[in-house]
Amino acid sequence: MNHNEFFAEYIGHISSPRKDMEDDNWGNVVSIIKLDSRFPVSSLKGLEEFSHLEIVFHMNQVDKSKIVTQDRHPRNNQEWPSVGIFSQRAKGRPNAIGVSRCELLEINQSEIKVKSLDAIDKTPILDIKPYVKEFGPIGEVRQPKWIDELMEDYYK
Amino acid sequence: MNHNEFFAEYIGHISSPRKDMEDDNWGNVVSIIKLDSRFPVSSLKGLEEFSHLEIVFHMNQVDKSKIVTQDRHPRNNQEWPSVGIFSQRAKGRPNAIGVSRCELLEINQSEIKVKSLDAIDKTPILDIKPYVKEFGPIGEVRQPKWIDELMEDYYK
Repeated sequence: MNHNEFFAEYIGHISSPRKDMEDDNWGNVVSIIKLDSRFPVSSLKGLEEFSHLEIVFHMNQVDKSKIVTQDRHPRNNQEWPSVGIFSQRAKGRPNAIGVSRCELLEINQSEIKVKSLDAIDKTPILDIKPYVKEFGPIGEVRQPKWIDELMEDYYK
Repeated sequence: MNHNEFFAEYIGHISSPRKDMEDDNWGNVVSIIKLDSRFPVSSLKGLEEFSHLEIVFHMNQVDKSKIVTQDRHPRNNQEWPSVGIFSQRAKGRPNAIGVSRCELLEINQSEIKVKSLDAIDKTPILDIKPYVKEFGPIGEVRQPKWIDELMEDYYK
């Protein structure tokens, strides 16, 4: 490996009722995060004290030919501006890493039941972190109008 | 590669005045995210409309022998409970992936000046995402008391 390469092993997988890549309506999706058996249950000790998690996952079912390295219209909607791939959260991005907050519902040994995780069935996981308030944005959040519109039905 | 392995190429590096791993006082740290030259400047088009970014980075300067796969006392403080590595955001974690929000100050070609990014100099970057309000936690955030205490000076 040269000095610009990153190598990791998945720490688990997501089991979700959503089998296909769809853009919207993740709000009521309940899925299971299954930790790989090489980690003891103690690696999740105390997690139940957090209301939300931050999951880092690999969007490995995205067609590699669809990865964009410059700009494009989000969701190919010409009414929205063409913005850089690093200025949007589209899945067709270099390294195909997703980061999402979700609500923690229940933990059963090495299985974590969560709500509103926008990852499809069989998605491999790179990390599980507790969501910590103080790590949220400091100061007021500003974002463009196109993304307010794009997010309208996302968690409905 | 087998089906449990993840491979990626860094998309850039962080240039920071902080050269050593320290736990606290990230609030006023100003650093530069340098995008790799293989990405055109258009990959960042429109990014200036966002106030905050979410940076995914590789904590590659963490000593591999310090990686924990079970539970431990955060910062080795015995007054805090021993919690699983996936129940804390410690750097000595499997895959050593960091995810942090920071404030966007200025963009100059392929260099992004940010504030409060808790990554040390030369840290390689895996992804840059705009922070989007709707992706924040849904509902009230609950977290244990030990992490309130741990975070007290983090962004001071």
